[in-house]
Amino acid sequence: MSMQGFAKLPEPPYYAVIFSSQRTAGDQGYGATAQRMAELAQQQPGFLGMESTRGVDGFGITVAYFTDEASIAAWKANVEHRAAQRMGHTTWYEHFELRIAKVERAHGRPAR
Amino acid sequence: MSMQGFAKLPEPPYYAVIFSSQRTAGDQGYGATAQRMAELAQQQPGFLGMESTRGVDGFGITVAYFTDEASIAAWKANVEHRAAQRMGHTTWYEHFELRIAKVERAHGRPAR
Repeated sequence: MSMQGFAKLPEPPYYAVIFSSQRTAGDQGYGATAQRMAELAQQQPGFLGMESTRGVDGFGITVAYFTDEASIAAWKANVEHRAAQRMGHTTWYEHFELRIAKVERAHGRPAR
Repeated sequence: MSMQGFAKLPEPPYYAVIFSSQRTAGDQGYGATAQRMAELAQQQPGFLGMESTRGVDGFGITVAYFTDEASIAAWKANVEHRAAQRMGHTTWYEHFELRIAKVERAHGRPAR
C-alpha cells in the first residue's frame, strides 16, 4: 500500500533518499512505527515529501525528499528515528538498500 | 508486486530514474509491456539494474539505475520504449512523476 500518494515537490535541485526493503513476516509493530515515522519526518526541517509503496510480496520502495544533505543527516540522527532504524535492522527487514541522490530534473503529468 | 527484488549495483556515482505512478483500472496490456520493458532495458548500454513495486491501491514506484545521463536519454528515445511511454500517458497511468537523480552514496544490508 502507498501511504500518501504523490509528493508535491519544488523545482529541482533537491535530494532523494531511496530506501528499498524486503519485509520479514508479520507486523511486529512495523505498521504503527512506519506511520509515526512518516508523521515525524514532516516535522524535520528540510523535509519536502515522501512517496512509499509495498507489494504483496513484502518488497517496498520509499523515497523521501529533502532540500539538502544536512537535513538528511539530521533526520538520520533523530533519536526516535534511530530507534526505528534499529528495529528495522534487527526485526522488520530481511534486506534493505539505501541510496542518497541529488535530483537534477523532474517532470510529471497529473490526472487526465 | 516487485518484479525482481534488489538491484545489484556498483559503487556510486551513477544515475537513478525514479518513476512513481498511479495505475488506471484494468490491465489493458500493461503487464506484458512492463515485463517486456524490463527485459528491453537490460539490453540498454549503461543500464545497471532496476527495482520496482506496486501496492494493491495501484500506486507504484520503479527506480531504474544507469551509468550516466546519456544512457538515460538513449533509453528514453528507444522506439519500443517510446511506444510504451505513449500508452502510459494515454491509457495506463492516471498520474506519474519522473525524477532524474545522481546517486552519490549508497549502503545496504543483505539478509541476516
